[in-house]
Formats: sequence, C-alpha cells, structure tokens
Amino acid sequence: MKAEIISIGTEILLGDILDTNTNYIAQRLPGLGIDLYTTHQIGDNLERLTELLRVAWSRSDVILCTGGLGPTEDDVTRDGIAAMLGETPEVDQRLEEELRQWFGRRGAHMPERNLKQAWLTPSTKDIPNPRGTAPGWWSEKDGRIIIAMPGPPAEMSRMWDKEVAPRLRERATDAVIVSHTVKTVGLGEGTVDEMVSALLKSRNPSIGVYAKADGIHLRITAKAPTEAEARELIAPVQEEIERILGPAVWGHDDDTMELAIGRLLRERGLTLATMESATGGLLASTITDAPGSSSYFRGGLVAYATEQKIAWGVPAEVVEQHGVISPECAKAMAAAAHAQLHTDIGVAVTGVAGPDEQEGKPVGTMHVAVHDGFDDHVISYQFAQGREAAKRRAVTVAFQLLRRVLLARG
Amino acid sequence: MKAEIISIGTEILLGDILDTNTNYIAQRLPGLGIDLYTTHQIGDNLERLTELLRVAWSRSDVILCTGGLGPTEDDVTRDGIAAMLGETPEVDQRLEEELRQWFGRRGAHMPERNLKQAWLTPSTKDIPNPRGTAPGWWSEKDGRIIIAMPGPPAEMSRMWDKEVAPRLRERATDAVIVSHTVKTVGLGEGTVDEMVSALLKSRNPSIGVYAKADGIHLRITAKAPTEAEARELIAPVQEEIERILGPAVWGHDDDTMELAIGRLLRERGLTLATMESATGGLLASTITDAPGSSSYFRGGLVAYATEQKIAWGVPAEVVEQHGVISPECAKAMAAAAHAQLHTDIGVAVTGVAGPDEQEGKPVGTMHVAVHDGFDDHVISYQFAQGREAAKRRAVTVAFQLLRRVLLARG
Repeated sequence: MKAEIISIGTEILLGDILDTNTNYIAQRLPGLGIDLYTTHQIGDNLERLTELLRVAWSRSDVILCTGGLGPTEDDVTRDGIAAMLGETPEVDQRLEEELRQWFGRRGAHMPERNLKQAWLTPSTKDIPNPRGTAPGWWSEKDGRIIIAMPGPPAEMSRMWDKEVAPRLRERATDAVIVSHTVKTVGLGEGTVDEMVSALLKSRNPSIGVYAKADGIHLRITAKAPTEAEARELIAPVQEEIERILGPAVWGHDDDTMELAIGRLLRERGLTLATMESATGGLLASTITDAPGSSSYFRGGLVAYATEQKIAWGVPAEVVEQHGVISPECAKAMAAAAHAQLHTDIGVAVTGVAGPDEQEGKPVGTMHVAVHDGFDDHVISYQFAQGREAAKRRAVTVAFQLLRRVLLARG
Repeated sequence: MKAEIISIGTEILLGDILDTNTNYIAQRLPGLGIDLYTTHQIGDNLERLTELLRVAWSRSDVILCTGGLGPTEDDVTRDGIAAMLGETPEVDQRLEEELRQWFGRRGAHMPERNLKQAWLTPSTKDIPNPRGTAPGWWSEKDGRIIIAMPGPPAEMSRMWDKEVAPRLRERATDAVIVSHTVKTVGLGEGTVDEMVSALLKSRNPSIGVYAKADGIHLRITAKAPTEAEARELIAPVQEEIERILGPAVWGHDDDTMELAIGRLLRERGLTLATMESATGGLLASTITDAPGSSSYFRGGLVAYATEQKIAWGVPAEVVEQHGVISPECAKAMAAAAHAQLHTDIGVAVTGVAGPDEQEGKPVGTMHVAVHDGFDDHVISYQFAQGREAAKRRAVTVAFQLLRRVLLARG
C-alpha cells in the first residue's frame, strides 16, 4: 500500500508554523505496512491543491491530508477533495446538529461560517473529532482512499490514533516494515560508518547511519510478512552492531538521554539534584521529561543572579577569584546542589547563553560539572549557535558527563 | 521568481527526524521576493529523487534542496542533481585538499568515502561550509538554479544566511512580500474571525487567522515593489485590527510570551522568581529564553520532592490539609518563591504531569499561581494531552496569568 502525505496551509509555506503532523504520521506508517514515498506542503490555494491531489490520486493508494478544515474562507481542503473526486459537498443534517450542540455546550452561538465543517460528499464519511469543531473526512472511490484530518496537532494525533490508524490497519495487507534504532555517543558519523561498513551492504534488513543532537544513530529496518519475522531479521544485525560499537551504545528506539540516565540512577539507587544558570531550568526540565523521575530527582536550583548562587552555597571566594563563568564555579555549583538537596549527585551548568558576552568570556562558553560526593568532573567547551541551541547543547553535554560518571561507578 | 523546496532523507519519511530546514527556508523566502508554492520530502532513493527533481526543474526557477550530502552510500543528492542536469560528477582537487585539511586539523584520517564530498559537475560551484565536511552545491543551467545544502540544521542555516540568501537576493527582481503578525490571547478563532470579518475580504494586504498554542494570530501580508511600500499597505490594516481587538493583543511578529512578560516586568521595575514541580524547570527555562532576562529574573526552585517544597517555605500544614496538587499549595509555592528569592513577584506551578495520577487527582490536573506581594491569583484546569504537552501548556497558562496580574498593576 503506497501512501502520500499532504499538509495544507499557507502558514506552513510562509514558515509561520512548523509542520509536525507529517512527522507524526510518517513515524506510524511503517508499523501498518504502508510505504511512504513522498510528502508535500502546499498553500491555501484551491487550484494548486486540486492539481496536487489529482497527481497524488493517480499514483498512491492512500492520501493523508492535514490542515485546511477550519471554518475560515482560507480553508479549502474539503473543496479540493470534492473537486478532485468530481463531487459536490452538501451540509449533513446530523453533523450540523452536532456542531450546533458543540457550540451550545460552551454557551456560544455557532458562527454561520462554521457550517462548512458539516459538509460531506457522496463518497465521504465523517471522522469524529471530540477535540475540535472540524470532523475529518474519509473518502473512498475506485479502490483508493483519501483522508483529511484537522491541522491542530492535538486534534490530528487523536484522530490518527483512535480513528484513522485502526481502520487503515485493517486495509493494509502488505508486508510490515519494522525498525530498530541503536543510539551511540562519542564517535563521529564517518567513524561509525567505517566500523559497521561490512553491514551496510545488507538490503533486508537495511542499515542507515544518522547524525543526531544526542550522538550517532543506526537504524536497522526489515521488511517481512509479519512483525515477528521482521524482528528475527533485525536481531542478529543488532547484536553484531552492539558488539562492534560496545560501550558507545547508550540506548535504543524511543530512548532519550534522560531515560537512559534515569535507568542508570535507579540501578545504582542514587539521587540527583541540579544547579544551573545558563540553561535557566532546561536541565531540570529535561530530567523531569522522563516519567518516574521523581524517584531519583529531588529538585533543582535555577541560580540566575550571582548573589543567588552564593546564597545557595557557592563560596563567594570562588566567584571572586574565578568569576561565575568558570570550571571552578561549575564545580562549586554541582557540590552546592548535592549539599542543598541532600542527594548523591549534583550536576551544574554555568556559561554564557548570549546574546552578550559576560565577564569578558565569549557567547557560547559553557562549563558543565558533576559532583558525586567523592570527585568533581567538569567539561568546558564553546558552542555559539544561538541562545536556545546553546541551552539544549549544554543539557546534552551534562547528560554525557553524568553517564560517564555513573558508568565509572559500575 | 518561483521556488520549490525538497528535503532529502529516508529518515524524514520514516519520521525519524523532524524536517525543520524547510520551515527555516520558507520563513526567509518572502523577504527575498521569492514565491514558494510547494515543498516536498523524499527518501534516499536516486531514481525517485531524480524524477522529482526533473518535475521541479520544469516548473520552478529555483530549487532548494537540503540533506543527502553526507559521506555515506545513502547520500544521493549529488547523484540526483547530476543525473537531472545530465552531467557527471568528478572530484575537484581544491575541494579534496580542503577536506583532507579539515580532517587533519582534527587529528583524524579522512575516510575514503568522504571523497564524494569533493565532487562537482561542470554547471556546479561549491558553497563553503565551515561547520561541516559537506560543501553545498550551486548549479545553474538554462536560466534556472538548483541549490543543495547539508541536512544538519546548524550547517544549513549558516550556509543559507551567509551564502545562499545574499546571492539569491541579487537575482530576485520581483516584488517583495512583507508580513506582519498580530498576536492575541483570550478570544477563540471563530470569534476573532467574525470580529475582523470585514477586513478578511482584503486581497492586498491579505489577512490570515491562525490558532496557535499562545493564542490566535492574525497575519497581514502585503506585496509591493519595495518593502517600504508593502509596509505602507500593512500599517492602516494593522491599526484597524488593533483597534478592534484591543487588550487581547499581546504581541507582534517574533514576539514570544516570555519577551512580552519581560517587557511588562521591566516597564514596572519588578523582579520575578519561580517555584515549580509539575513543569520541572520548564517555566524558568522559558522565562530565560528571553535575552536580558537576568535583569528581572533572579532564579527559580524546582521542588520535585514534597519535602523540598516544605524545606523551601511551603507550610507543612498546607501540604497536609490540601495535598501538593491543590490551588492552596500553588499559592503557597508562589509566596515561597517570592520570599526565598526576595522578588516582587513569585509564580508557581504544581500538578500531575503524568503518566500516573497523584494524590488521587487525575493526570493533567494543573494549578498555576502568582503572588505579587499583595494578593494571590490562581488558575486551576485540566489538560491531559501527554506529559510534555502538559508542561508546555502550564507554562503558557502561567504567562497568561502573569500578564493579567502585571496589566492590572498598570
């Protein structure tokens, strides 16, 4: 079964919004045995949308559209699908009634323009959308399917999970595609590529090497009649990759650095606290993105003002002698987090997030430290690619240092 | 000048990475007077890529490619462009030399497969890439341009800003498109649409209404021979929109809630501190995404463990009587942040980020409080759309409450 995704909205082409819906759907197609060959973004232009729909309809078994189902004049997805199918949309009585009730429950009067959200065509059934006013469209004709889902990600993802994916799963009869990702840190992309080069010739499973913010990932992808058979193809290749890359492997699939760190802390029965300035709370926030982090993370201090660092236990002499942008201050902050929150480990970040330099130290200067009750560990580096990227990078470096310290504790 | 963007990489179609490059480029084309009609994502498949390039080449003046310039066998962008142009790539001596030096400076030996990063064709010039090993490609033939940039966003964005955009600016001679966005909060999309419906008929400037996480945005877009003329078309419409929507307007263009809150705090000479549990540091981190936030943000406490909330000043009685998931605890946390960090304002978040319920309160329960030294303000709500979405939502609600309190202080 061949699929094509089309995201509709001039705001996407103007760069006003980032299209995350395509990524959400793309991640979920392989598990349904559906191949995705191409995706498109197109504006709120009825003529161009209809033309693209015609081309996609001629070559794909299923077209997945998102966006353009709102109540405004710009929202042309229904019009485009109807034109491509050669049908005329009409207001459906039941949908109109449901729509008026939706507004009624909120004590609001339905604007007349919302009526187009009650449209259907002869080949179209509606798809329920309890999170918004726009039902989806499921149209079938000549053995092909076109589906339209709303653009707001919360509405789209629910509709996909609860309505669209289960129905597509019944239709898709092709082989399933299963992937397994092995995540490494500490080796470059070319190095990893050379280390596993003998395996890269393999076609089923195939192996892709990707550079990511948290290291180099290897994706092993197998195609087979059933998921179990696909996993059997993957297993020996995965084992071989892990043997070759050894301790550089830190995780798999949906693993994140914060989950991996959480496992290491739990296995060792250790607790963690943070003190951060340059990252402004992002380190603590990322640690707590891991469900269950309350079992090892006690809390954190965001010491943005210098006096606040001192009030929370950084010796004033350290600040006087080395400044706050220094490895010494990072170490003192990690020790202070450890002491203030009575944890086994303290981790700290100080640096210059920008846009201005500080203490004469350039933007992007970062010092990351871990205090484990016995020793201090510190990494200092420079990363000047913007304030938010610098914050994210510092969090990744903190996780790498934490991992190294935790592994050394066995 | 008509443009088309193509992102290349099977990892995009598998949903393994989110394509942010298209968005980055899309945002920057209108200012160059370049129209973007459609964008595509396609996998590492030479045949399908070449076919898409042929179609794009037949209808667009400039094709902008990202990705597929790495050293691995999967990286087929150069092959695809050469095939589409009907040319054969060859190793360029100067590029090979530069590449070997790049590795040499890092004390590394160049893997032989990296040699393809030194390829050029007769119609192709290289584009410098100091952030990586893959130079870009700038190919011109028959009055059309095709540009290939690396996939890693840091390499791509630098190449775009420093090399590609300046050269395209010289070529593009059409009218420029200028946009201005007005951001509102507190009104629904349909309501805003009806309030400004008379203006929506306008074609130049045109007006789009978009629902975003931080409220409803109105985008006014004008096309004119020069930027100044475009801005003259926008000004009266913007004024009218602001008159109609009044205090619901909180910002413009690249404004973020954290920048808007920062302005309000600075104007009033007030300082801010946070205490958060459910958001785990994300509130503090988002506040400090605003450059210059150190002038009003002193710091924050991430009180993940209950004892930590009490250690930092939440009365034990409040926790005993109401639990930590309560409006009372949120208010006590805001007051404690205010007291601990000696600021004018304290803001706090407590709630159940999930995946498990807590104190018998369901996932998504959130209490957000502001203490301004005189009064407590609290918003309680329910938002169960996943842990990370719940954290982001709570930060937005905290900013809305802060804004309301700050505006009331005049």
